[in-house]
Amino acid sequence: MGGRLKVTYLVSCGVQAVESRARALAVEQSVEMPVAAITDAALRDGIVGRVDAIEPAGADRFAVTIALACATIEADAGQLLNMLFGNSSLHDDVVLADVALPDDMAAGFGGPRHGIAGFRGRLGAERRALTATALKPQGLPPAALADLAQKFAAGGIDLIKDDHGIADQSYAPFAARVPRIADAVREAVRKTGRPTLYVPNLSGDLDSMRVQLACAGAAGVAAVMVAPMVAGFATVRTLVTENPDMAFVAHPALGGASRVAPPLLFGKLFRLIGCDAIVYPNFGGRFGWSAQTCRALADAARAPWHGLAPSLPGPAGGMTRERVPELLDFYGPDVMLLIGGALLEAGPRLIEATADFVAAVHGHDYVKAVRARTSIRSSP
Amino acid sequence: MGGRLKVTYLVSCGVQAVESRARALAVEQSVEMPVAAITDAALRDGIVGRVDAIEPAGADRFAVTIALACATIEADAGQLLNMLFGNSSLHDDVVLADVALPDDMAAGFGGPRHGIAGFRGRLGAERRALTATALKPQGLPPAALADLAQKFAAGGIDLIKDDHGIADQSYAPFAARVPRIADAVREAVRKTGRPTLYVPNLSGDLDSMRVQLACAGAAGVAAVMVAPMVAGFATVRTLVTENPDMAFVAHPALGGASRVAPPLLFGKLFRLIGCDAIVYPNFGGRFGWSAQTCRALADAARAPWHGLAPSLPGPAGGMTRERVPELLDFYGPDVMLLIGGALLEAGPRLIEATADFVAAVHGHDYVKAVRARTSIRSSP
Repeated sequence: MGGRLKVTYLVSCGVQAVESRARALAVEQSVEMPVAAITDAALRDGIVGRVDAIEPAGADRFAVTIALACATIEADAGQLLNMLFGNSSLHDDVVLADVALPDDMAAGFGGPRHGIAGFRGRLGAERRALTATALKPQGLPPAALADLAQKFAAGGIDLIKDDHGIADQSYAPFAARVPRIADAVREAVRKTGRPTLYVPNLSGDLDSMRVQLACAGAAGVAAVMVAPMVAGFATVRTLVTENPDMAFVAHPALGGASRVAPPLLFGKLFRLIGCDAIVYPNFGGRFGWSAQTCRALADAARAPWHGLAPSLPGPAGGMTRERVPELLDFYGPDVMLLIGGALLEAGPRLIEATADFVAAVHGHDYVKAVRARTSIRSSP
Repeated sequence: MGGRLKVTYLVSCGVQAVESRARALAVEQSVEMPVAAITDAALRDGIVGRVDAIEPAGADRFAVTIALACATIEADAGQLLNMLFGNSSLHDDVVLADVALPDDMAAGFGGPRHGIAGFRGRLGAERRALTATALKPQGLPPAALADLAQKFAAGGIDLIKDDHGIADQSYAPFAARVPRIADAVREAVRKTGRPTLYVPNLSGDLDSMRVQLACAGAAGVAAVMVAPMVAGFATVRTLVTENPDMAFVAHPALGGASRVAPPLLFGKLFRLIGCDAIVYPNFGGRFGWSAQTCRALADAARAPWHGLAPSLPGPAGGMTRERVPELLDFYGPDVMLLIGGALLEAGPRLIEATADFVAAVHGHDYVKAVRARTSIRSSP
């Protein structure tokens, strides 16, 4: 594979230092040795990173774009992260900000196999925003998780995922809980007449995830969740490739390394390796991300990009019924609002609280909001 | 598995906020939902994180120790990272600083199978510090890598690893380069009479790493390298368990997430899951870590800890012959000094430069340094 990808880093340094810092970065993310000691001219031209651009990006901060050789990555998703940021992750003054790939590299990774359309099709929800919740707390036995899932489904939620802490622990092993929860959801769906997807959480190594996927498939599950920064990018890509009918929901666990820009890591790279939906911490909830970061992430997940299917953004954390209008105005309908604690706090009114949330999402008037923003006011 | 592990986080906040921040952390890293909504008392007692201690740790900074339930982790290495820091990695104000495990959890993970003693035994070097270098640059074909390896071995280096960017690319696929390099090193060793280990770099998913390991074993290789933050902790642990005769060298790629303290991540956690040696960026080289951080990392890797074998620290980055005395005084002999670019810059004098470096390490007088530090001076 020939060609170069363009990688943008935000580098914190003074203007005197930036040119040499940029050259060092280009070397660190390619040959990682003094270039003068490379005697092979073709290798120097073909493999060593090249500084493409240096632009100011604030006080003592620069956006440095490096052209890296695609040949150093080929189609290995783990190697992609390694060459984008492996050693430079160890430098405090560098943030990995963005990546521009050649078409053939993007196509090689393939992106989501289902994307937003996949969820809409499975849920019969072609226009509206989607809703999701999580089975909590971990520690509950399968029967209790199934009961909870049945209630959420009765309330009309679109997607019910395992809490990301529910792995394969003795209190609710995957093989014991997933068929049971899937059955409970199927039963509830028979009554409501509306589809609800149960999304179990994968854990362990590639072998254990394969076993879990087979179990999930046999239980009629259509989507699974995985944390790419825990499992490893190569693991996720292999699972996506091997399970073309399964949708993959990405969880951001361990991905908060402050030095990879969230829109790039979660919006672009998770999408690139095949995540159909991306759960991430929403602004204004219990995490500290800004609205700007969240918008950039959702944009990166959904924007036209090398023909890859758009991934469904799943903002989560501190979600409430009251925030629905604000958030649907903010994100538009191509989003899955994930609500957790607020429903569980409703206690015996869980089904009603779920139905309330669902109704708010289904009934949102996007036109009214747009009109309010664009209306010509009569008073000056 | 019963019991609790103690996890220490450095939290940046004011004294008014810290108690509630600590409670939030305990919840985030366990049940991740409002505790009041948990009706199962046994679960509340057994699973919800508990704030164990809050100690000042600087201006507007606190060391918060949370007791997490071992039952949420059991023996899953990926789940360990998930429960230690999965969601909290997404909070800018938290650093994962340390972990204290119960004996049975540490034993469950097992630690290094070979450790420092394993390298000493394989190299016949029972007392002195060890030396290492890396095959660079990536892009070289197998024949050139083999030639370079032969030269390093002729110079008497203990260990030659692949540059961490050398994966399975078309210019030097694993199966093409590893037997060739291993042969060249074996040939050189026959002439020098001193052992040298070639350590190839594993890449891809678990399947591809297994194939690579089998190829390496067949080529007579005794140790392999892997980047746990790229491959995933569960992947590494599985490989360690399946290959009891192979030693594992950890590379720190992608591990620079500034919010897991390096001594914990590289010194303790890499050791815990079975890494026999740990490459990391040395102070005073091209990376910005302090001497204090490096000492803490080396201490964590080597200190008595639940009876786990000590891991061999492998400081790297900007290593030179001139720094050998300083670094051996700093680290003592239980270390592997990794030198890269400085040898390659010697060009046609590569073998001599290698031999120089090796001689400096072998000949280091530890007693002289200790005496200099402890001598009673005649003048006041």
